Amino acid sequence: MSDAKGGVDLGGTKIQAVVLDRSNEVLGQARNPTPTSGGPEGVAAAIVETLVEAAGAAGLEAAELTAVGVGSPGAVDSGSGVVASAGNLPGWDSPFPLGPTLQAALDTKVALGNDVQVAIEGEFALGAGRDFSSLLGVFWGTGVGGGLVLDRRPWLGRGAAGEIGHMVVRKGGAICTCGRRGCMEAYAGRAAMEARARALVKEGEPTKLFEIMEERGRTRLQSGVWARALKREDPMAVALVDRAIGALGAGIASAVNLLDVEAVVIGGGLGTRLGVPYVKRIENAMGPHLFVPERPPTVALAALGDLGGAIGAALLGEGA
Amino acid sequence: MSDAKGGVDLGGTKIQAVVLDRSNEVLGQARNPTPTSGGPEGVAAAIVETLVEAAGAAGLEAAELTAVGVGSPGAVDSGSGVVASAGNLPGWDSPFPLGPTLQAALDTKVALGNDVQVAIEGEFALGAGRDFSSLLGVFWGTGVGGGLVLDRRPWLGRGAAGEIGHMVVRKGGAICTCGRRGCMEAYAGRAAMEARARALVKEGEPTKLFEIMEERGRTRLQSGVWARALKREDPMAVALVDRAIGALGAGIASAVNLLDVEAVVIGGGLGTRLGVPYVKRIENAMGPHLFVPERPPTVALAALGDLGGAIGAALLGEGA
Repeated sequence: MSDAKGGVDLGGTKIQAVVLDRSNEVLGQARNPTPTSGGPEGVAAAIVETLVEAAGAAGLEAAELTAVGVGSPGAVDSGSGVVASAGNLPGWDSPFPLGPTLQAALDTKVALGNDVQVAIEGEFALGAGRDFSSLLGVFWGTGVGGGLVLDRRPWLGRGAAGEIGHMVVRKGGAICTCGRRGCMEAYAGRAAMEARARALVKEGEPTKLFEIMEERGRTRLQSGVWARALKREDPMAVALVDRAIGALGAGIASAVNLLDVEAVVIGGGLGTRLGVPYVKRIENAMGPHLFVPERPPTVALAALGDLGGAIGAALLGEGA
Repeated sequence: MSDAKGGVDLGGTKIQAVVLDRSNEVLGQARNPTPTSGGPEGVAAAIVETLVEAAGAAGLEAAELTAVGVGSPGAVDSGSGVVASAGNLPGWDSPFPLGPTLQAALDTKVALGNDVQVAIEGEFALGAGRDFSSLLGVFWGTGVGGGLVLDRRPWLGRGAAGEIGHMVVRKGGAICTCGRRGCMEAYAGRAAMEARARALVKEGEPTKLFEIMEERGRTRLQSGVWARALKREDPMAVALVDRAIGALGAGIASAVNLLDVEAVVIGGGLGTRLGVPYVKRIENAMGPHLFVPERPPTVALAALGDLGGAIGAALLGEGA
C-alpha cells in the first residue's frame, strides 16, 4: 500500500482524475470525456478507467491508493454513496449507488461529495482560501454553484446549502434554467447566457459568438468561446458578460452581507478561464451592495485551476 | 446574591428590562422610553433605572443579579463593551463604553451583544427555535434585521453577519434607507414603507394610514398603525404590505437557498404585531423561490413576543 490517494471530478462533459501523495502533490492525472451512453454503469466504468490511468501515470495500481474521493453533481448522499438527480449526467434517470459500485471495482475505500463543495474545500485546504477561516466559494460555469466553509468547517445545512446561483437578484426578473425567476444564475450561468445570446441572434442582433463556436468545433458557447469573443470585443459578448458580472456582484454581496465571511473564491469554467481581471470586476460590482464597504472580504481567483475539483475530491477520500 | 439575572433590550424608542430566575422564568420587568436628550450617558442612566425597576418588581436589588446582558443597536464590541454607530439612539455620535459604564453603576457583571442577534439567540434557546439546530431569524420592524444560529452556535462572521435586510432582491431597484439600491429593507422595512406611503400621498393617492396615525397620537407609522389600516382594508396599506411580503419572501428564500437552515423565525415589531397569518403569507411568498421546495424550512413566529430581546439579552449575561 502506497501513501497515495485518488480524486475524481465527475462533470457533465469530462471526468478528471488525480493521484496525490501524502503532501498533496500531484503524482499523476488523467482526463476522459464523460460517456454519452451506457447510463450510470457506463459513467462508473469510465471513472474507474480514468483513475487507473491516473494511478498508472503515478506508477501505481488503483488498488494501492489509500482512498478515493469523488466529487459528483446531483444530490449526493455521502453516507450511502448514492447519487440522484444528476440531470446533467447522461442517462442518470434514477438514484444509483455510485460509491459502492466504485468501491467494488477499485478495491479501495471510496468517499463521495458534492462536486462544487468538494472543489471549495480543496481551495480552502490548499488553494486561494488557505489563509482564511471562513470562505464563500462561487463556481461560475454552466450554472453558478456555491459552497461554504464557516469556522474552518464545511457548512452543508441539511445537505443542500450553497445554492448561491438561486439567490434572487431581481425579483420577477429573467427566467432561470431552474424554472424560477430572477435567480443570479438566470443572468450569470453560461447556459442562461447562451440561451440569451441565441434569443438575441433570432431578434437579428449581430455577434461573433456562434462563428467562434463553429471555428472551435463546438456546439455550445463554452468558456473559451466567451473568452475569445471578449478578446475580439464582440458587443453582444461584452454586454452579456457585463450583465452576468452585475448579477454576480449583487448576489455575492448579498451573501457577504448575510454571512460576513473573510474571503470569496471565484472558480468554475468561466471564472478560471476569464481569470483575475474578471474576478476584479466581480469584486468591483460587489462594492455598491456591501453593507460594510470599509471592510470587504478578500476576493480571489481559485488557485487550483482545472484540477481543483479532483484535488478537493482526493482530500475528501482522505477522511473516508 | 440571588440566582436571578437581568436582561435589557435597548431600542431607539424604548428600553425593556427583565429579570429571570435560574429556570429563565420572568420574575420582574420594566419598560421606559429611551431618553431623547442626554446622549449615551443619559441612555446608560435610563438603562440602570429600568433595570432597578425590573429588579424591584422581582423583589431584588440590581446588585443582587448574577449578571446583566444588554442587547444594543449599532456596532457592539462585546469584548470592550463599546457601542459605536448607534445612529438610531439619540446623541450617540461617537463610540461609548456602555458596558463598563453600566458595570460601574450596577455593581454586577455586564455583557453586551447586538440587539437582533441576542433576540434570535433567545428564540433559539427558549422560543420558536428551540427544536432546531440551525436557524435564521428575521426581525421585521423599522428595518429588517437578521441573525443566524448554525449547528447550535451563533454565526457572527467577522462581527457583522446577519444583515439580511441588505440582501439585494431587486438589482437597481428602490433606494434603501442605507443609501443602496434594491435591498430587501427598501421594500419591507417599516421606515421605507412609511417613506413610500408619504410619497404616494403627495402624489394624491388616498389612504387612512396617516389618519389612523393621528388618532393614535403617533407621528410615525408604527406597527399598530399598519395593523389597524390592514384591518380596515386600506388599499395603500394592503399594497405596501403585499410588496413588503414579496420582498421578504424572495430575500428569505435566497438566504435559505444559500444556507439550508432548518427553521426561519420571524419577529420584530411588525412581525410580532401582524402575527401568524402574515408569517404564513411570508412562508407562501418564499415558496416560488426555494431551490428545494419539497423540503422547506419550518417558518414560525417568534414565540417570546415583546420581551424576547430582553430575555435573549439576559441569557447573554449568563455567560458573562
